[in-house]
Amino acid sequence: MKFSDLVQKLGSTTFDLASDPEITSVSAIEAAQPHSLSYIEGIKFAAQIATTSASALVLPLDPTLQTQATERGIAWIADPIPRKAFAESIALFYQPFRPSPQIHPTAVIDPSVQLGQEVAIGAHVVIEAGVKIGDRVCIYPNVVIYPGVVIGDRTVLHANCTIHERSQIGADCIIQSGAVIGAEGFGFVPVPEGWFKMQQSGYVVIEDQVEVGCNSTIDRPALDTTRIGRGTKIDNLVHIAHGCQIGEHCIMAGQVGLAGAVTVGNRVIMAGQVGIVDHVKIGDGAIASAKAGVHHDVAAGAVVTGIPAISHKLFVKSTAVFNRLPEMYQSLRQIQKQLGIERKV
Amino acid sequence: MKFSDLVQKLGSTTFDLASDPEITSVSAIEAAQPHSLSYIEGIKFAAQIATTSASALVLPLDPTLQTQATERGIAWIADPIPRKAFAESIALFYQPFRPSPQIHPTAVIDPSVQLGQEVAIGAHVVIEAGVKIGDRVCIYPNVVIYPGVVIGDRTVLHANCTIHERSQIGADCIIQSGAVIGAEGFGFVPVPEGWFKMQQSGYVVIEDQVEVGCNSTIDRPALDTTRIGRGTKIDNLVHIAHGCQIGEHCIMAGQVGLAGAVTVGNRVIMAGQVGIVDHVKIGDGAIASAKAGVHHDVAAGAVVTGIPAISHKLFVKSTAVFNRLPEMYQSLRQIQKQLGIERKV
Amino acid sequence: MKFSDLVQKLGSTTFDLASDPEITSVSAIEAAQPHSLSYIEGIKFAAQIATTSASALVLPLDPTLQTQATERGIAWIADPIPRKAFAESIALFYQPFRPSPQIHPTAVIDPSVQLGQEVAIGAHVVIEAGVKIGDRVCIYPNVVIYPGVVIGDRTVLHANCTIHERSQIGADCIIQSGAVIGAEGFGFVPVPEGWFKMQQSGYVVIEDQVEVGCNSTIDRPALDTTRIGRGTKIDNLVHIAHGCQIGEHCIMAGQVGLAGAVTVGNRVIMAGQVGIVDHVKIGDGAIASAKAGVHHDVAAGAVVTGIPAISHKLFVKSTAVFNRLPEMYQSLRQIQKQLGIERKV
Repeated sequence: MKFSDLVQKLGSTTFDLASDPEITSVSAIEAAQPHSLSYIEGIKFAAQIATTSASALVLPLDPTLQTQATERGIAWIADPIPRKAFAESIALFYQPFRPSPQIHPTAVIDPSVQLGQEVAIGAHVVIEAGVKIGDRVCIYPNVVIYPGVVIGDRTVLHANCTIHERSQIGADCIIQSGAVIGAEGFGFVPVPEGWFKMQQSGYVVIEDQVEVGCNSTIDRPALDTTRIGRGTKIDNLVHIAHGCQIGEHCIMAGQVGLAGAVTVGNRVIMAGQVGIVDHVKIGDGAIASAKAGVHHDVAAGAVVTGIPAISHKLFVKSTAVFNRLPEMYQSLRQIQKQLGIERKV
Repeated sequence: MKFSDLVQKLGSTTFDLASDPEITSVSAIEAAQPHSLSYIEGIKFAAQIATTSASALVLPLDPTLQTQATERGIAWIADPIPRKAFAESIALFYQPFRPSPQIHPTAVIDPSVQLGQEVAIGAHVVIEAGVKIGDRVCIYPNVVIYPGVVIGDRTVLHANCTIHERSQIGADCIIQSGAVIGAEGFGFVPVPEGWFKMQQSGYVVIEDQVEVGCNSTIDRPALDTTRIGRGTKIDNLVHIAHGCQIGEHCIMAGQVGLAGAVTVGNRVIMAGQVGIVDHVKIGDGAIASAKAGVHHDVAAGAVVTGIPAISHKLFVKSTAVFNRLPEMYQSLRQIQKQLGIERKV
Repeated sequence: MKFSDLVQKLGSTTFDLASDPEITSVSAIEAAQPHSLSYIEGIKFAAQIATTSASALVLPLDPTLQTQATERGIAWIADPIPRKAFAESIALFYQPFRPSPQIHPTAVIDPSVQLGQEVAIGAHVVIEAGVKIGDRVCIYPNVVIYPGVVIGDRTVLHANCTIHERSQIGADCIIQSGAVIGAEGFGFVPVPEGWFKMQQSGYVVIEDQVEVGCNSTIDRPALDTTRIGRGTKIDNLVHIAHGCQIGEHCIMAGQVGLAGAVTVGNRVIMAGQVGIVDHVKIGDGAIASAKAGVHHDVAAGAVVTGIPAISHKLFVKSTAVFNRLPEMYQSLRQIQKQLGIERKV
């Protein structure tokens, strides 16, 4: 693809075609070869413009960087969010494999299933009674869908995932391989003989544009609904227990775990391996750092760290002292000695 | 269903039929609508009786609450464990989907497999040689069972789970979707060239009434047996390594991980993301708090928290001081200054 | 098998046949019965020689232990790595189930797939276009392989695992059940409307002799390659994010999580539930203790513990003081009082 074609496809208005190079690949800046397109996120990566072998760059709206690229004869486009423009460029060179919109003869589909237009259903898929599948849905091999599930338009279900009864998945979602949606929440009543199972009669609702990572699990509750808000992205091996209410456009990184009935606002970010105790409420825009264990409600916009999680700032300060505790202990002993205090510690 | 029918089905002896309302659903107390049944766990929720729209309630054996409900014209039954009676009520209104006891023609079942009475086997299930399946077992689509496995009566295997050779699963168990039982334990011998694989020739035994959550994994050992005791309930994404011995009626919440050869007593509770180091022994009735990292044996009945886990009480006290460490550090510096001590910290 | 046969098969040169017992099983030393072979790792287990019922033992190169066994009439062989010799012995008594090298008629294999010699493909396997499968590869039922994947000779893919496009798996690897290789990395660009998906156009390369545990996930990156070095062993429920570079002969225990673009040297050991923050570099031979949260680069050979991870030695010392913080706090208060200092804490 000529660079000028790329500029046109991205709809860029700020650019320098230079020699209008042929672009054959996209690449990280360090690994870039001639004929590849790469990107620079901001001024602090300026030095890389001087050395990269890329033939073209996506740049931020920064005249200094643009001049620098022009002087090296590198073609460029500029964008207020260069990372997004670069992501759009990747999509011009690579689209993930999608099967053709056909139903494989080995798929087992109950006669009552309602299929939309141009649906792709892979080999050995099983779809039980009463399921409704929207238009242009893509279901990869060996997926199992329990009775009554609803799948919105253009949603993709990757191989070997399982969608249980009482689940509703919106449009434009991606459910990655091995994910399990709508299985029975972990609800048991302690009784003298052990644990009495509470049937999980509630629902899972996944709104539009949600992504659920590989082998992640989202359980249905005994009553009411587990809900994942529009645009929320969930990474691999995440556990969302029965009755959680997750807002819109949240990010949950790998191995995050939410206990039952957690409420999460919009645009919340949870880093890897965060755990949230049951019934906790997390305000809009809050951030939980990697491995945080959140036992109490978190205010909107707060950043929390540690187990139990406290303000990130306090955690950093206290941790700095934690690492000097052996010396502090010695100092305290010395003071006690000097003051003739009989020591407790 | 008339409330009087429900009373009869639950076998309740303490109740007030009021107007014997028609009950059409079960509901959480906050969300309850007319014609729904809800429940109150104890006196501290008394205020909700005054405002709920539920037509009927499950109450504890508390005359005050009962009088309050009667005065509002709300039908009620009372039970020593109201949560259990409510769970029984849910089961009257909702039963999870179970396929009819048929063998789907696409299932691949070795001729040597022994099948009990009224077994349901879903589409694309694969059952290898020598497997024994009990009566009324229910196997959902795309389950794979390796050779020689034994599955007890009435056990349910949800879609896409895998049961490996040398596994024996008891009666009345539920194995949720994506769980893997009896795969090879993570056993390698360090040798100069790297890691030498130790074949895992042992067994997994899961006793009766065990539940294993979605995508959880229970490995078989090199020698001897990994055992999960009767009535133990395991949540999603839990890892139980080779050779663990888990007692009866334990609870393991989401993402708990047990390293090799851990021994766990009866009625032990592990909250979410707990990790137990190999060969540790946990006594009966012990509790490990969320995210605890247990490096040493835990006495029966103990409650442990933290990484490494210590007594919960001590952890709470030490953590309170941890959060004041920056101030403590300043105080110590001030004392050193006042005493003319050359500071180490 | 006669003990003398076993000696011959292991190629041992240091042994005592004693009465050349018939060996019918391998066993842990505590559980050993007559006719079983067991092993002793070193001198500290010497007492067990006096009491074991094993008919034969694998011993270290230790004359004392050897004499002790001979005096009890126990047959023995000695090896510089007795655990390895014992592992080899287990393999003489037990080999995991492998299907015969046939292609099950229910497998769905694209005509363009290249199959090596003596390949075993189980029921309901799905292999998409352009896949290359090496010689003697063994693919268990319900595995799904996306287009263009390459699988090396003698590699084993257990039931219900999924290999995505742009993945290359070497020779002599074992991918356990439910593992997902090469799915889309968790890459999104923050934009005002939410999160913009970055297509993951990179690759996953798994070198020879790698083992990936049940339900573990290894993602492909937007650009370049996620790489797992030769001989590395990965346990269950491990998450390796897009763009990680893992060296050779590493060990990653259960539920370890690596964020994006982590670089790990050779022979690194990560204990259970370790988490590594994105872009961190871990040097050769480093060890991260169970539950460590690694936020900064780790030097070769270092042992780190804690969240955030620090030197293991410092962590142990600081933790000892942490457990005495309540007393330290009281001591500090007492000193302040004695000195007439107005207290901050």
